[in-house]
Amino acid sequence: MNDPSAATVLIDATALTAFCTALFVDAGMAPTEARLCADQLVTADLRGVESHGTVRMAIYLERLRRGIIVPRAAMTVVRQTRSTAVFDGGNGMGQVVGQAAMELTVEKARTHGEPAFVSVRNSNHFGAAAWFAEIGARAGMIGFAYTIGGINHMVPWGGAEGMLGNNPFAVAMPMRDEAPMVLDMACSVAARGKIIVAAKEGRVIPADWAVDRDGRPTTDAQAALEGFVAPVGGPKGYALTLTIGLLSTMLSGAFFGSEVTNMYEDLEHPQNIGHLFGALPIAAFELTERYFERMHKAAVDIRGVRRAPGVDRVYLPGEREARLAESRRHDGLPLGAETWRELASLGAAARVPVPALMRGEGAT
Amino acid sequence: MNDPSAATVLIDATALTAFCTALFVDAGMAPTEARLCADQLVTADLRGVESHGTVRMAIYLERLRRGIIVPRAAMTVVRQTRSTAVFDGGNGMGQVVGQAAMELTVEKARTHGEPAFVSVRNSNHFGAAAWFAEIGARAGMIGFAYTIGGINHMVPWGGAEGMLGNNPFAVAMPMRDEAPMVLDMACSVAARGKIIVAAKEGRVIPADWAVDRDGRPTTDAQAALEGFVAPVGGPKGYALTLTIGLLSTMLSGAFFGSEVTNMYEDLEHPQNIGHLFGALPIAAFELTERYFERMHKAAVDIRGVRRAPGVDRVYLPGEREARLAESRRHDGLPLGAETWRELASLGAAARVPVPALMRGEGAT
Repeated sequence: MNDPSAATVLIDATALTAFCTALFVDAGMAPTEARLCADQLVTADLRGVESHGTVRMAIYLERLRRGIIVPRAAMTVVRQTRSTAVFDGGNGMGQVVGQAAMELTVEKARTHGEPAFVSVRNSNHFGAAAWFAEIGARAGMIGFAYTIGGINHMVPWGGAEGMLGNNPFAVAMPMRDEAPMVLDMACSVAARGKIIVAAKEGRVIPADWAVDRDGRPTTDAQAALEGFVAPVGGPKGYALTLTIGLLSTMLSGAFFGSEVTNMYEDLEHPQNIGHLFGALPIAAFELTERYFERMHKAAVDIRGVRRAPGVDRVYLPGEREARLAESRRHDGLPLGAETWRELASLGAAARVPVPALMRGEGAT
Repeated sequence: MNDPSAATVLIDATALTAFCTALFVDAGMAPTEARLCADQLVTADLRGVESHGTVRMAIYLERLRRGIIVPRAAMTVVRQTRSTAVFDGGNGMGQVVGQAAMELTVEKARTHGEPAFVSVRNSNHFGAAAWFAEIGARAGMIGFAYTIGGINHMVPWGGAEGMLGNNPFAVAMPMRDEAPMVLDMACSVAARGKIIVAAKEGRVIPADWAVDRDGRPTTDAQAALEGFVAPVGGPKGYALTLTIGLLSTMLSGAFFGSEVTNMYEDLEHPQNIGHLFGALPIAAFELTERYFERMHKAAVDIRGVRRAPGVDRVYLPGEREARLAESRRHDGLPLGAETWRELASLGAAARVPVPALMRGEGAT
């Protein structure tokens, strides 16, 4: 949600992770789980996916304190076969529930050497989908993660009423000598955060970014904020976000459509968010060495293409994010000044010491 | 590929299917398999997906006659586990190979009640992905079908060289009292056929439809034809088409990237097209009755939203196509005049009697 052009502060990622961990512990979470959530959020910031980073701390803490997310949730396997399970997150943090459910998926796939899928209910907003798909890739499998979003920001194609989340999914494929190739996409043309920035600055937006409250395409950023984000490829993106939403909910009993509440506006009810995780063990299909060799050749093909004017480098999906994270871990993480002020005030309220900045407001 | 504004003829779908079956038999195929291919192509036309319909007859027949698609291919299961298989299509027609491989997927999923996935190599262009995903849905499962395209029509993001197909995938979810909900999408903003029509008519195209041969966005339809189709959502569509391509090839040894030939231009070599099929049995996760009830409620939610001005009806994915097919089966199938002339000349060359038209050239 940060505006890249706005003022930023620079902070050490490890210090920020410790700080967020302490905030989650203060909100009642167990230290290990608090650390997992903090790590996932800071990793998203490091990867440049700020919309799923520490900008979300305030709403998570608010929901934890109100008890509509349970800080120490009891997670249970409701039913299972050899290669499937239905997992009840006990209304815990989505990051914690997702981690446990994806680890179960991988364990099942590894134990039997067969594809495994686990559906999840009674979860919450889980952050970046890539995180979970990568758990599969790190285990030598193709990992899949689907989730329904926590707000109905999209309309069915031709509609004028929010009934669909901007639902994301991720697929991660392991590579031999480098980070996994990771597709992680939601279904809107542009993030709502970009529309917020345009509205603040009084700029018009491209005609394909949003529809107004009556479902008509608009270039007026304010009208867009009162309306809905538009799907990639029109009806394609509509069909895609609907399908991701159904895959994430119909196999577990999680909420869909009119049952979905707004995670920022409804502060009284649990959300019953659903996910679906999958893992395909490479070795069930192909010699692992051959798979890795062919993936390497594919990467060489992609990176080696002739480039368009002004393009320095062609990246694999997820590669730019992995490189950015590496350099930010070393050089410091730039955070939007507004996000930082919010984090600092959360720290002050919880009496959690605010870490020193490397650069920016109050840096020494 | 048809221009909807161009002259059309009207033909009976059953007669067209019999005609195409005879053409495939004449090219050496077994009658049952010929009929399957014809049925799939005519069904695509009926559903309004003309790009995967009988417009492809000429190239399929050409490849069959040249032996670079094998008319009576020997298909084999190369290796398998309980819930997976690697399937070698023996360089047969993609429709035939895909049907057999998806049926194997469903059989495995049904036998064990677990998710099943089958990867395929040595196949060919298989037509519309929805066809295969629906085989799963009709068996009460969520069906998945991925394939790599037969032409490298897309560039990696930032590139200026075709290295990726406009790869499609489909997901079909069963409904109780109506046709399955079917997502079937490729990754380009617009079909190349639309650019061909614009070029013929000297019209400019929207800036997000294509890039020229140097990878620069262009509104010049002719420059676009010499270039590449652009992905939905920019880098999102790039990551998606790459991932679909890898899923379709890396688990089976099918060709990818620089190995992929152009199905229209290279008439000497087999294509070694790859697919991936999957099936998730609903009952492994959820009571079937509950799944159907919740899917029905989801459909009611989607169809019942307030509509944008001028919109008569909100459709589920695949619904418009299913309705169109039904009415066209009854009232006749409109075919582009150019497609019809090509089919008639294929008939004349093979001495297969050309069916009478219901309306249009030579109709009586």
